[in-house]
Amino acid sequence: MESGRVRFDPCHHHAAVGPMAGIVSPSMPVYVVENRAGGNRAYSTLNEGYGKVLRYGAYSPEVLERLRWMEDTLAPAIGRALELAGGVDMKVLIAQALQMGDEGHNRNRAGSALLGRLLAPHLVRTGLPTEQQSQAFRYLADNDLVALNPVMAACKATMDAAHGIPASTLVTTMARNGTEFGIRVSGLGDRWFVAPAETPRGLYFPGFTAADANPDVGDSAITETAGIGAFAMAAAPAIVTFVSGTARDALASTLEMYEITLAENPAFGIPALDFRGTPTGIDIRKVVRTGILPRINTGIAHRQPGVGQIGAGLVRPPSACFEQAVAAMAEALAR
Amino acid sequence: MESGRVRFDPCHHHAAVGPMAGIVSPSMPVYVVENRAGGNRAYSTLNEGYGKVLRYGAYSPEVLERLRWMEDTLAPAIGRALELAGGVDMKVLIAQALQMGDEGHNRNRAGSALLGRLLAPHLVRTGLPTEQQSQAFRYLADNDLVALNPVMAACKATMDAAHGIPASTLVTTMARNGTEFGIRVSGLGDRWFVAPAETPRGLYFPGFTAADANPDVGDSAITETAGIGAFAMAAAPAIVTFVSGTARDALASTLEMYEITLAENPAFGIPALDFRGTPTGIDIRKVVRTGILPRINTGIAHRQPGVGQIGAGLVRPPSACFEQAVAAMAEALAR
Repeated sequence: MESGRVRFDPCHHHAAVGPMAGIVSPSMPVYVVENRAGGNRAYSTLNEGYGKVLRYGAYSPEVLERLRWMEDTLAPAIGRALELAGGVDMKVLIAQALQMGDEGHNRNRAGSALLGRLLAPHLVRTGLPTEQQSQAFRYLADNDLVALNPVMAACKATMDAAHGIPASTLVTTMARNGTEFGIRVSGLGDRWFVAPAETPRGLYFPGFTAADANPDVGDSAITETAGIGAFAMAAAPAIVTFVSGTARDALASTLEMYEITLAENPAFGIPALDFRGTPTGIDIRKVVRTGILPRINTGIAHRQPGVGQIGAGLVRPPSACFEQAVAAMAEALAR
Repeated sequence: MESGRVRFDPCHHHAAVGPMAGIVSPSMPVYVVENRAGGNRAYSTLNEGYGKVLRYGAYSPEVLERLRWMEDTLAPAIGRALELAGGVDMKVLIAQALQMGDEGHNRNRAGSALLGRLLAPHLVRTGLPTEQQSQAFRYLADNDLVALNPVMAACKATMDAAHGIPASTLVTTMARNGTEFGIRVSGLGDRWFVAPAETPRGLYFPGFTAADANPDVGDSAITETAGIGAFAMAAAPAIVTFVSGTARDALASTLEMYEITLAENPAFGIPALDFRGTPTGIDIRKVVRTGILPRINTGIAHRQPGVGQIGAGLVRPPSACFEQAVAAMAEALAR
């Protein structure tokens, strides 16, 4: 699968959708990622960082204050810098980050550092007062997840372009809402194939244990859907300190994913595999035939609202999603 | 070997030494790296980038113009930013860069990006006019070798602290002048053990071939002397595209160097080897006993003055340096 050429375009105020609408503001700034080959766009919010963050359920005054600063000060400056930069090529950025120990889902230190240095020459030209500029650069320096959100949007823009191909058994979305896990398949329209979500296994931040963990939640599995994240673990051996495991496990994770994917992405070469492309494009038939479920790197949310992220680890989707999808495809093709 | 705690301190104007004196200016700005454990300091110039650069022998008007801009505008701003930052901990920076695909000699993209983002919140507070700030950020964004020079100085500050230990067979310097290769040994005072330099083997920039190459030149082999560079190749599989080879070669390079070193540096863990420390501290006895010569990643200079860097590759020191040093040590101990 070729990852479409995507660009990281200026932030626009875009109507918020879903459960976040009304919590922060009636509209919020988002990254706009354009798939120039496909002509489609995807969006993401700005990343808040680790720990007590809204996207993991925290909503204390400090969380809201940070979001207001991001909305009022940071996002307009990043938006203007992106305009001055003429956008950022996310495909190139992801390719470089995969050569620098990122897998693009749980580890984005390299991508974030690269994004920051691409924006910096322009950020100083935005007219933002010096102290606020300094704060913006501190946000870019301190948050290793800065790149995660535009990377997710790039993956979304890539996979949306692959949706709707008749009879295609390619998975175009994997998403979880904390209770259920759902997938969509290119040739099966808007149907979701849904089953109860698993709980991730991994490492917990100090003071938390597996008993605190919520079942798998979030739409970040779009990274694995597009062939990075856990699928690119071989590129990111250092991540094992964050999600548990060994360097050999990291290699094995990627090698296993070649068994259930349709292609290798030549743009995303993995140095440790002599630049073999990341395993890309999950095929529901291969998943059901081999019994190998996709691997997903993910953060772990506390099961109580208000706490936030409490760890990070690994999870797999329920097999029922793929079995239902294969049955639905067989039925559709038999008509 | 423990790499001493080093900090990256403000630039000072420091008397130029060696052949550069008088070419650029009677004094030039340098990074000052302090080994806080050892109390000693080392210095390096600011990196000029790739290709036509003074340190590889180029001296055209554009080379000199860039150096003047670096001296007049860039260095004072970086110096002030470093003051505001309270210095940068180079040991932490190198450790992080080794987890991000750098080996610290020929590949410094991660270290450079990390250094840039550490400086950015302070650089905007230096009072530099906006356009010059933007140029400084462009220098930090475009030059993947920004971190090389302070990394070299950090290695120098580390190894100088290990020099002068009675009867120690540790190599504390490896340096080349384009004609000869010389080493110094901790327990053998100020003596240099010298033999003709080899010519590196590697990949050439477009338009150049091995026939254009000068024999091995430069003092950057201080990185290998301190246990990074080619000794940390296993951390940087992507570098094989720059110096030739495969990911397996990168692993093998590091594994071979454990045979001739005294220790493993726990601060510099290699992810692909499950965070085994880099092979550190070349022992002249082990080199002579095993016949394994240190590996060095290096740039290749054109043999004609004025051209500059024309490629990058691998080189080893002549074995005679180590044989002479072992003989000298035997003689010294027999007295």
